[in-house]
Amino acid sequence: MNEKDSKEQILRRSVEAKEIYLPHISADPVIFGFHQNELKVLLARMNYRKQWMLPGGYVKKDEDLDDAVLRILESRAGVTNVFLEEFGVFGKKNRSEYYFEDFDDSLFQKQRFISVGYYALYNSSELSPVADEMSETCEWIYLKQLPEINLAMDHREIIEKALQTLREKISHKPIGYNLLPEKFTLPELQKLYEAILGKPLNRGNFYRKIKNLGILKKLQEQRRGGAHKAPDLYSFDDHQYRKALENGLRNW
Amino acid sequence: MNEKDSKEQILRRSVEAKEIYLPHISADPVIFGFHQNELKVLLARMNYRKQWMLPGGYVKKDEDLDDAVLRILESRAGVTNVFLEEFGVFGKKNRSEYYFEDFDDSLFQKQRFISVGYYALYNSSELSPVADEMSETCEWIYLKQLPEINLAMDHREIIEKALQTLREKISHKPIGYNLLPEKFTLPELQKLYEAILGKPLNRGNFYRKIKNLGILKKLQEQRRGGAHKAPDLYSFDDHQYRKALENGLRNW
Repeated sequence: MNEKDSKEQILRRSVEAKEIYLPHISADPVIFGFHQNELKVLLARMNYRKQWMLPGGYVKKDEDLDDAVLRILESRAGVTNVFLEEFGVFGKKNRSEYYFEDFDDSLFQKQRFISVGYYALYNSSELSPVADEMSETCEWIYLKQLPEINLAMDHREIIEKALQTLREKISHKPIGYNLLPEKFTLPELQKLYEAILGKPLNRGNFYRKIKNLGILKKLQEQRRGGAHKAPDLYSFDDHQYRKALENGLRNW
Repeated sequence: MNEKDSKEQILRRSVEAKEIYLPHISADPVIFGFHQNELKVLLARMNYRKQWMLPGGYVKKDEDLDDAVLRILESRAGVTNVFLEEFGVFGKKNRSEYYFEDFDDSLFQKQRFISVGYYALYNSSELSPVADEMSETCEWIYLKQLPEINLAMDHREIIEKALQTLREKISHKPIGYNLLPEKFTLPELQKLYEAILGKPLNRGNFYRKIKNLGILKKLQEQRRGGAHKAPDLYSFDDHQYRKALENGLRNW
C-alpha cells in the first residue's frame, strides 16, 4: 500500500475508533514462539511507515480488558487459543504520540496511550499468523533479527521487558508444557532454557537441577534413529507440573 | 463530614479533575506494612459513603504513569520514599462505575476506570500515613481485620492479588531488607515469612532453606536480655542479597 492510501486508511480508522474504543488505553500482546531451538516474536509490519509493531490495539468501551487483548490478538494476527499473562504497563508520556506526527492532533491514534503488555510463549509451528488490513504482513521474527528491524514507538522496550519477565519466570515456574512435543529428550529441554536465557548452560548442572524439580517422568523408551547413542525420552509429570505451576518450584 | 458536604466535595473534585487528569486510567497503591509480626495494609476511609479504599487516584495528562502513582500515594496518604512494583491491571467493565451511582453520568469519577495496581512492603512503624481532604482517615488495617470492614469497588480483589504476588515473590526473590532491623534473629525472619504466607512454617525446614539461599551473615553476637537462651543474630549479606534480587534465588 502506498503512503497516500495508508494515510487515508488511518484517517478512516480514526473516525471509527472514536465511536468504539476507550481513549488513552491500549493493549500489546508479545507472543514468543519456540521452534528449531530459537525464540521468535510475533510482529506486524504496518502499511503506514512500514515499521514493525506488536499486534496491539484498543479496548472497546463495553469490553473487559482481558477480553480486549484476546480479541486484538485474533483480529490483528489471526491467533486464537492463547493463554496470556499481563507483565507490565507502559505509561511514559510521549511513548506513542510521535508515531503519528504527520497527522492532526484530533486523530484517535495520535493521543497519549498507556499500554498494557501481555505475553505468552507458544510453539510457533502451531500458530499461523494472518495479517489484518492495516498491516502488510504479520510474521514470526527471530529475536536475533530484532536489532536489524525498524520497530515502532517503544515496542523494542516492551519486548525486552516481556523477555525479562519470561527469564525470571523460569526460575520459579515450570515451563515447556505447550512448547515441547509430548516426549522429549533432556538436550531438547536444555535448548529451550538456553533460548529463553540467551546463554549456554552447563549440561551436568542443568540435568541435575531440572531432575531435582521433580516435574519430569523418565520413559521406558529412547529416541531412535540418530547417529549417536539413543537418548532417553522424558515427559512432564502432569500432576507435579500443575502443582509446581500453582505453588512455584520452591516451597517454604 | 456529612453526606451533603461529601457530595458537594465530589462534585467540586469532578470539575477540577476533568481539567487535570486523563480519563479512564487510575492507579492504586497497595502498601503492606509489617509490624509486631503481623501484616497490615494502608487504607483510607472516604468521606463519601464511609467506605474504605486503597489510597488511589488519577494520572495527569502530562505525567508519566510511574510518577503518577508516587504523587498519588504522597497526596492521598502522605507516604514518600517507597519503591513500588506494578503487579496487575484491573480492567473489568463496571468495576468502579457503580460506586458513584447517586451522581450524574457526567461526573469524572463515575466513568469507567482501568486501574493499575502497584505494591510495596514496608516496616509500618516507619511510614506515618496522613489522610487527604477526601478521606476521614488513612491508616494501617491488619489483614485479619479485612473481612470485617466495608471495602469499596473491587479493592478487596486488588489487595488479594497483591498479596498473592508477594507470596509468589518470596519463592524466588529475597525479602526483608527494608522490613527487619539491621540485626535480626532467625525466629524474627521466620515470623515475616509466616505473616506473608499466612501459615506456620516448620522451624527446621525454614532454617535449612533460608540458610541455603546464602543471603544471610551470622554475626558474632547474640540477642541479650530474653528469658531464653540468647539467640544468634544475623544480618543480610549486602552483596549476596543484591545478587539474588537481580538474578533470583535459583540460577540455571
